Amino acid sequence: MPASPIRKLAPLAYAAEDRGVKIYKLNIGQPDLPTPQKALDVLKHIDRTTLEYSPSQGYRSLRQALVGYYERYQIKLSADEIIITSGGSEAVLFAFLSCLNPGDEIIVPEPAYANYMSFAVSAGAVIRTVATTIEEGFCLPKVEKFEQLINDRTKAILICNPNNPTGYLYTQREMNQIRDLVKKYNLYLFSDEVYREFIYTGSPYISAMHLEGIEQNVVLIDSVSKRYSECGIRIGALITKNADIRKTVMKFCQARLSPPLIGQMIAEASIEGTEEYSRLVYDEYVERRKCLIDGVNRIPGCYTPVPMGAFYTVAQLPVEDTEKFCAWCLSDFCWKDDKTPEGKVGETIMMAPAAGFYSTPGMGMNQVRLAYVLNKKDIQRALFLLEKALEQYKQVK
Amino acid sequence: MPASPIRKLAPLAYAAEDRGVKIYKLNIGQPDLPTPQKALDVLKHIDRTTLEYSPSQGYRSLRQALVGYYERYQIKLSADEIIITSGGSEAVLFAFLSCLNPGDEIIVPEPAYANYMSFAVSAGAVIRTVATTIEEGFCLPKVEKFEQLINDRTKAILICNPNNPTGYLYTQREMNQIRDLVKKYNLYLFSDEVYREFIYTGSPYISAMHLEGIEQNVVLIDSVSKRYSECGIRIGALITKNADIRKTVMKFCQARLSPPLIGQMIAEASIEGTEEYSRLVYDEYVERRKCLIDGVNRIPGCYTPVPMGAFYTVAQLPVEDTEKFCAWCLSDFCWKDDKTPEGKVGETIMMAPAAGFYSTPGMGMNQVRLAYVLNKKDIQRALFLLEKALEQYKQVK
Repeated sequence: MPASPIRKLAPLAYAAEDRGVKIYKLNIGQPDLPTPQKALDVLKHIDRTTLEYSPSQGYRSLRQALVGYYERYQIKLSADEIIITSGGSEAVLFAFLSCLNPGDEIIVPEPAYANYMSFAVSAGAVIRTVATTIEEGFCLPKVEKFEQLINDRTKAILICNPNNPTGYLYTQREMNQIRDLVKKYNLYLFSDEVYREFIYTGSPYISAMHLEGIEQNVVLIDSVSKRYSECGIRIGALITKNADIRKTVMKFCQARLSPPLIGQMIAEASIEGTEEYSRLVYDEYVERRKCLIDGVNRIPGCYTPVPMGAFYTVAQLPVEDTEKFCAWCLSDFCWKDDKTPEGKVGETIMMAPAAGFYSTPGMGMNQVRLAYVLNKKDIQRALFLLEKALEQYKQVK
Repeated sequence: MPASPIRKLAPLAYAAEDRGVKIYKLNIGQPDLPTPQKALDVLKHIDRTTLEYSPSQGYRSLRQALVGYYERYQIKLSADEIIITSGGSEAVLFAFLSCLNPGDEIIVPEPAYANYMSFAVSAGAVIRTVATTIEEGFCLPKVEKFEQLINDRTKAILICNPNNPTGYLYTQREMNQIRDLVKKYNLYLFSDEVYREFIYTGSPYISAMHLEGIEQNVVLIDSVSKRYSECGIRIGALITKNADIRKTVMKFCQARLSPPLIGQMIAEASIEGTEEYSRLVYDEYVERRKCLIDGVNRIPGCYTPVPMGAFYTVAQLPVEDTEKFCAWCLSDFCWKDDKTPEGKVGETIMMAPAAGFYSTPGMGMNQVRLAYVLNKKDIQRALFLLEKALEQYKQVK
């Protein structure tokens, strides 16, 4: 497995912080917003004396709460169709392990969440990508592009909707196109929808679970991490109406015994009675998104399409190689003015070079993924620093 | 993956409980003892407002606490050599994924923890077993038995010490034998030592980490689950002095982002200042072990060697097929007398048929694994029920 370019930056970031540099981190999908108070309160009221294994499928009460949650999105499920996993990560891994044999291929639109690749490696599966482009706003490629890749080993299509890293939201037409492909070639459809809460354009959210005629093919990947700012509790879910898949997934679940006990209690408390919390979080992301997108597009030579969902965007910068530029920002760039926080020697920004989200060599070289998980004031400062860094970089290069 | 015979019993157990039968569960390794109060108290004092991702390797403070813990066992480590995992389960999976290629073989003495097989399937690896026998008290087979299995694809030996399911503790001589094999054939040695706390005979605990000359070959699997009765928090560790292995393991760790946050806080609190707790737990298991082993060997036709560690034993019963007998205990046997708890229609026992711990077909057919994770009174009642069940079974069969 190649080391992700994002991870290669980490040592540079630690070194910069050690030097006293303040770093504005636009590189990670770790929301800074508080977890719902109702969920945090659970911790104070746990009266168990033994923190025992929970059921391998997860607590029924949590699965039942999720049934109610999905109903709000017109997704009708029973608690039996939901399997609780250790984060969305484990759901992806178990979906691959359960549906694919070594050598089987999954088609994924790129850029894509880099860890899909790691889970494919773990399962011995192969990821084939269809390219989407910044020029076309990362919309889904034509059917032909998929069909060019389909062969005897093709077993699945994987989408992330709304998308990480692009923020793209698939339209009804695009989802129908995927449905038709899945049906025609009898593929599995793995649909990672952990960002469904964050759709900003009034466009409808079309879940893979809404598509008719492929109910037995769909495996939904979900997680409470992003929507309740509780990434650390490691609670996700694998959801499918296909009983055979669930039976196989359960074998992997039983092998790892159980998902985290306390995380499940927190997740359950997060699901109901948090509508006000969700509204505030949503409003906050709406403003941050506007702030980031407008700001990026105002910097000379920079461009980003307007993402419809999630809390990421992919932006093009006026540099040849963002891996080098992002590294330089951490190793060399250090801005200081009267707005620099006291005690800091200067400030810089950390971004995720987009090449790490592409499998095709050479793609995304001048792009970065930016996450708007900082408050507006910090986003504005980060954008100011990005502009200054680009100016300096042009001169030293 | 074949369904474990233990799991096949679960529906029968649910059905019995629905009928109002009280089941004494000797089948599972879920300690009933309380988690240390000090660890439970952590929950009341978590003052974070965002339950964010923790580092992929786990918190340094937890790893540092573990360094101190291992020092008590003459295992010298640095925090960098410890990787926190989501239970010992994930440590086993990551060890296999990181050290083995698909098709590579691992030699495991059987009977063995059934889930090793599931993790091997996940990693595409193949488990080959050397048989140990109840007649020889499950001691390690001779070197020749291992060497008969060694070929070009053999990459590792896996031991569980003290052993689940047999309770066997490897002697210095046996550990040296393993060391010599590992050295001679340059194998990895995966050593699952999650039961090290529970050694009852005064025999020395020889960790794989104590073996000289194979420091770069050893991967230690550990977990706080059993020793602090906190199976539900899902905190384990993968420990190795081999930096190359750690580098690969870290890629899998980064893909799944982080181990459970709150579990790590609980685990850290469990490690220090819990000596009194550990002593009480140990004393409790010493008594339970005596109670179970003496009791089993007193039942006509039953036999178990005396386990030196863990909280399991494998016992031989006077039946041909324990899978059938264990199922019958749940579906047909229902004892009632004046000691039966009020409101219950009767009582029975649940045991784990030992065939599920063997890969070799036909092995362990007349054996069961018994866990002594019930209090003494319940163990005594369970043994009484076992004796009565055997008597009835002989007549109906």
